[in-house]
Amino acid sequence: MAKKEKDFVKEITPMEEDFSRWYTDVIMKNELVDYSPVKGFMVIRPYGYALWEKIQSYADEKFKETGHKNMYFPLLIPESLLTKEKEHVEGFAPEVAWVTHGGSQELGERLCVRPTSETIICHMYKKWLNSYRDLPYLYNQWCSVVRWEKSTRPFLRTSEFLWQEGHTLHETYEESQEETLKMLNIYKEVAEDLMAMPVVVGQKSEKEKFAGAFATYTMEALMHDGQALQAGTSHNLGQHFTKAFEIKYQGRTGKEEFPFHTSWGISTRLIGGLIMVHSDNRGLVLPPKIAPTQVVIIPIAQKKEGVLEKSNEIFDKIKARGIRVELDDDLGNSTGWKFNQYEMKGYPIRIELGPRDIENNQAVVVRRDKLEKEIISLDNIDETLSEMLDTMQSDLFEKAKAHREAHTYVVTDYEQYKKDLPTKPGFAKMMWCGCRECEDKLKEETGATIRCIPFEQEDLGDKCHICGKEAKHMIYVAKAY
Amino acid sequence: MAKKEKDFVKEITPMEEDFSRWYTDVIMKNELVDYSPVKGFMVIRPYGYALWEKIQSYADEKFKETGHKNMYFPLLIPESLLTKEKEHVEGFAPEVAWVTHGGSQELGERLCVRPTSETIICHMYKKWLNSYRDLPYLYNQWCSVVRWEKSTRPFLRTSEFLWQEGHTLHETYEESQEETLKMLNIYKEVAEDLMAMPVVVGQKSEKEKFAGAFATYTMEALMHDGQALQAGTSHNLGQHFTKAFEIKYQGRTGKEEFPFHTSWGISTRLIGGLIMVHSDNRGLVLPPKIAPTQVVIIPIAQKKEGVLEKSNEIFDKIKARGIRVELDDDLGNSTGWKFNQYEMKGYPIRIELGPRDIENNQAVVVRRDKLEKEIISLDNIDETLSEMLDTMQSDLFEKAKAHREAHTYVVTDYEQYKKDLPTKPGFAKMMWCGCRECEDKLKEETGATIRCIPFEQEDLGDKCHICGKEAKHMIYVAKAY
Ligand SMILES: [Zn+2]
Ligand SMILES: [Zn+2]
Repeated sequence: MAKKEKDFVKEITPMEEDFSRWYTDVIMKNELVDYSPVKGFMVIRPYGYALWEKIQSYADEKFKETGHKNMYFPLLIPESLLTKEKEHVEGFAPEVAWVTHGGSQELGERLCVRPTSETIICHMYKKWLNSYRDLPYLYNQWCSVVRWEKSTRPFLRTSEFLWQEGHTLHETYEESQEETLKMLNIYKEVAEDLMAMPVVVGQKSEKEKFAGAFATYTMEALMHDGQALQAGTSHNLGQHFTKAFEIKYQGRTGKEEFPFHTSWGISTRLIGGLIMVHSDNRGLVLPPKIAPTQVVIIPIAQKKEGVLEKSNEIFDKIKARGIRVELDDDLGNSTGWKFNQYEMKGYPIRIELGPRDIENNQAVVVRRDKLEKEIISLDNIDETLSEMLDTMQSDLFEKAKAHREAHTYVVTDYEQYKKDLPTKPGFAKMMWCGCRECEDKLKEETGATIRCIPFEQEDLGDKCHICGKEAKHMIYVAKAY
Repeated sequence: MAKKEKDFVKEITPMEEDFSRWYTDVIMKNELVDYSPVKGFMVIRPYGYALWEKIQSYADEKFKETGHKNMYFPLLIPESLLTKEKEHVEGFAPEVAWVTHGGSQELGERLCVRPTSETIICHMYKKWLNSYRDLPYLYNQWCSVVRWEKSTRPFLRTSEFLWQEGHTLHETYEESQEETLKMLNIYKEVAEDLMAMPVVVGQKSEKEKFAGAFATYTMEALMHDGQALQAGTSHNLGQHFTKAFEIKYQGRTGKEEFPFHTSWGISTRLIGGLIMVHSDNRGLVLPPKIAPTQVVIIPIAQKKEGVLEKSNEIFDKIKARGIRVELDDDLGNSTGWKFNQYEMKGYPIRIELGPRDIENNQAVVVRRDKLEKEIISLDNIDETLSEMLDTMQSDLFEKAKAHREAHTYVVTDYEQYKKDLPTKPGFAKMMWCGCRECEDKLKEETGATIRCIPFEQEDLGDKCHICGKEAKHMIYVAKAY
């Protein structure tokens, strides 16, 4: 058995050795996704999809609580619609898939597979909206989108991905801005509360904003390797699209008005972040709130009298408390193999229950993030586990936050930053004058980009660290996925 | 107000006058869908999508209870995969949309937008399946599919629709057959329990079966106008696909084996059936279990002291019981307008609550299917409503069943049937020899088709009603959507 266990863990490349291979190993060994016959398109397998279902149901509930309803718009968008908003088409046209034939007939106009749905939704909103009484429009869509990518990585960048896209219309700029930030805040809850993944929230630079947006807001997470991940964005689209699509309504004064417009999205990319924030060299580490299974019971010497009965009794008790629990009584695998298996799969807590434990009215429990054996009483085991899961959830968040803080650097000298970056990956906080030239120079010289202008500004001096001119913003800078 | 009400109801064409326009009116006035800029593609609007969400969550729960897990496979399928199973490609190739360009590049191989996913799923199953220990494979996918249709109708036949497709693999034919029928039975529960829509279940003829199936099973519902609707199908695919895709595994004896394969699907088409089974000339009638809102409270003379307070109190009480309830206290619309509005939208129960009602500790309630005023006590109103909703659910089912029975005819003479059909649309039960010639003749001479060979066979004679030769099956025949 010892040998088998060793081999087993060896299958995952240590992250210190090759972070990218570690990531792929964790994903592939856990069968979260697989490569499909179409380059860049992935299959999301059951264990990966179960994570997405947790994100979906958590977010969907929050969307509905804040008055949003779901709809479904067509997959295919006529080329003439895509091209109506100038910046938008420039941003997306290079990466769309084109349908040219329906059945055996060539189409009169090419249709693109939606890369995002602003254009077709605006086309419909124009048709529907009449009066200020109809506003706000608070709608969302869950679907897949296609963006032809040259180089792809599971979850992080794929030519097709699953997401939701909210599309709202408002009477005033203030309301649209409030909506934009409200949804960013819901995304922050998805990341921090559900996924235990701390994020920095702020605004994107002009260069990095969404094609056609007035302003883009983002949440940025820091991965194990010190690279940033853009984990969700919320756009105030202003009146760019509503004017291009002539969405008009009769305002309160009887005058025709253009509404203010937002869109916002999170995607299966979040799952990539989840992995790169919590997992380790033994495989996945899943925060309890998002874990499809939270507790697994492994009977020890289960053929001995009473072991299976007690295991089942405890299973029922834990399940009755609403904990997602499994009992693995498969005799075809050794307990050692099972320990490895569930560690790799990131089950938050494993319970070992053998004859001696039962005699002593106790169980051995192991938290996936600590991998230390603890002994707990079988009395109120459901309550104890419930508390352990809560503690583990907040411990994971704190651990990830501590990692981020340990990898967040205050830049005092740009030249020094350039030298340090290769050995000190992470977030760099610096001052910026706000000009595109400095932003381009930063990217060119370091490979790092402005992740956001955080809402929580700090005063790190009055000069731009790049050009020395007057500084306008404190920014977060990092290399990013 | 009287005039306005009249005008309002007039907007829906009576079904006796023009059934097809009635159907479209009910859908469009209720904003369930809208036409999109791409011919044949529909937008599903919030009220329509809410119905789909109810179907989804009901079915998904049953799928999971029976051990199925969800996955997601790519939207695009290489042409070479689509063509691997001969009957399948012949069935689907004429109606697929082709992607020929990704970004600015022409693709080496055309990709079709999935019309259904057997081929890409089999390609992946081949890669994954090793041993009999891995079986059964019990997986499902929720997604949209595209089938280029020449003439379309909202929900019933559109070039894109939302559905789920289950795809399972089994060790033995018996298990695959058990699965096929189990899933058909779950569909029957969706139709009959959730939607109060009675269905006839049985097997499709060779001609009508799914392209590539060994056997197709179906549930067929009868619409108001006497036409049938195929509401869900479950296919035993045998080893057709598993052999074409070389899905092999090591069997119990160590020998290589091909698994047995099923697939099964229900779609947004069900919503079309829901409408054509229950709704009337005033608009939608929704069975309580599927109704997004089950009860609406309309305060009468709500400016009078105590009316709004009491309405809110009752709202809270009903809501606490888990009933989906709304309170419409909008002063911008008259109560008459509200009555019409919620009747059109098919809300199962409306409560009218005015000052005199409150004085008498009572409320006026109107069930959408009966449109008669009843007086109920405010004591235990939540319990009373809960019972009323249950009764309404079963009444709607019984009513639809009675309608079906009144429109089910036993054929004694084929020539007479041909004469009667135009004035007596509905299900015809007759005997059939099983040959394709009779099936084609029936279609050609009457426009009706064999809907199914029902599991519940009846003995209606020993001769085929069409050719007079020896009969093999009792069949249900009807014109169908
Ligand atoms: Zn500068
Ligand atoms: Zn015959």
